[in-house]
Amino acid sequence: MKHIAILGPGLLGGSIALKLRALGGNHVALWARRAEAVEEIRARGCADEASTDVREIVRGADVVIFSVPVGAMPALAREIVGELRADTIVTDVGSVKATVVAELSAIFAGRAQFVGSHPMAGCEFTGLKAARANLFEGTTCIVTSDNSGEATEKVSAFWQSLGCRVVRLAAAEHDECVALISHLPHLVAGTLVRTVAASNPHAFNVVGPGFRDTTRVASGPAPLWVEILRENSTAVVAALDAMIAKLAEFRQTLAPQGDPQALHDLLAGAKHTRDQITFPK
Amino acid sequence: MKHIAILGPGLLGGSIALKLRALGGNHVALWARRAEAVEEIRARGCADEASTDVREIVRGADVVIFSVPVGAMPALAREIVGELRADTIVTDVGSVKATVVAELSAIFAGRAQFVGSHPMAGCEFTGLKAARANLFEGTTCIVTSDNSGEATEKVSAFWQSLGCRVVRLAAAEHDECVALISHLPHLVAGTLVRTVAASNPHAFNVVGPGFRDTTRVASGPAPLWVEILRENSTAVVAALDAMIAKLAEFRQTLAPQGDPQALHDLLAGAKHTRDQITFPK
Repeated sequence: MKHIAILGPGLLGGSIALKLRALGGNHVALWARRAEAVEEIRARGCADEASTDVREIVRGADVVIFSVPVGAMPALAREIVGELRADTIVTDVGSVKATVVAELSAIFAGRAQFVGSHPMAGCEFTGLKAARANLFEGTTCIVTSDNSGEATEKVSAFWQSLGCRVVRLAAAEHDECVALISHLPHLVAGTLVRTVAASNPHAFNVVGPGFRDTTRVASGPAPLWVEILRENSTAVVAALDAMIAKLAEFRQTLAPQGDPQALHDLLAGAKHTRDQITFPK
Repeated sequence: MKHIAILGPGLLGGSIALKLRALGGNHVALWARRAEAVEEIRARGCADEASTDVREIVRGADVVIFSVPVGAMPALAREIVGELRADTIVTDVGSVKATVVAELSAIFAGRAQFVGSHPMAGCEFTGLKAARANLFEGTTCIVTSDNSGEATEKVSAFWQSLGCRVVRLAAAEHDECVALISHLPHLVAGTLVRTVAASNPHAFNVVGPGFRDTTRVASGPAPLWVEILRENSTAVVAALDAMIAKLAEFRQTLAPQGDPQALHDLLAGAKHTRDQITFPK
């Protein structure tokens, strides 16, 4: 029986706990900062052990998973590092990886085995209430390849056991990729909503499935996204600049004296590229 | 029994025909330009009558629906106008309305009752093969309010009988609204795909449901969209300029010396606005 400690009972931490309980064979220990959250964990029955005492939760753990905001990780890491064994596997679920991997690798160096993770599961809904055992089924989890070796294998196997497809990327390339396929789309979706609201809010009366889907991610929680976007701001600003330049290319083909062939080629190229993408599920 | 003539057996024309056949009580006549398409209509059994002779299809019709590309409508209108009665109801399914309403109202003035329509049903898939009787269920159809009176009532009732919610808008306001909620999102989705492809195509290996949904409409057929975007280019260029200016606002909050409170307020405002929208279905 493995002792798995999960720090933070949000959507991701709660869903990991529920899935581990469903799989069986583990001792699932879940830490929450607030006593009310511990009560909620117990009421929902999603852990074998729940406490506000983080040292108690991680003591003797084989695996520790940080499922708290990225900015809260270093302090929590310093608080628990003395309780871990040199072979304890430590990972996280943060949406940015370069800073997390640098900071947590330094704290755990020689005292535990840290490997970064980013399970890419939805986040319009948050909190333990939205958690579910099958959240990870068919999703992709990126595992950082900066610290190679046995720990990386174990962390990859852990996510696979929850139902994820695992892709390994260096932390810096992870951050560039998610800026492009997650952080930029979030800003674009929010900007679409703001553009319609500012230009002609009557248009919201005639929206269809296209607008619904194109803007869906804009309903994610603002405080979480402020943190994600700021942690990855260099890559996000580069992605925004590339996006603005490419929107201007479309504008050029449509302006008076536009170029229908160029417009066609841009649209057909985008369609062709998208139709080649393999989406999960 | 009403004689309903549908001109063009694409996704929309074919789906209208299938739904009318399912409802029963109508004589459904379907025109196609190509003999092979007429064969396909007969094989699929989606009309009581099918022909490449457009005058034969509309002769004696109570209702005529143009379901061909917007650019092909005026010539086809001139070809059939002599076959119609002064009380024949004529409408169309074009994605832009100001030019269509101006041109077709002039051709049919005093010779039939024209009212513009825009059923907002999906278009990643096209052609009769994708047609289905329930395509319009829960969707919105805009009916132009420029030509008021009895014909507008009848056209509205027609779309409601197919399952649409009807919204009436002046043709010019229609074009501004769809530029914002359909044409702009199409360009934005295509631009997102192009931005990732140009910046780091490895990112396509880790896309999730967010990127899938945000870019879904980019898989629509390029030739159709070239026509739609060019027909509505003035409103689309205005929407693109507004979008680019608002993306730059986000960039400002993220640049070095950014402003986390301003970033939060932009994101929270977009989320709040989107969460108020009533989406169909």
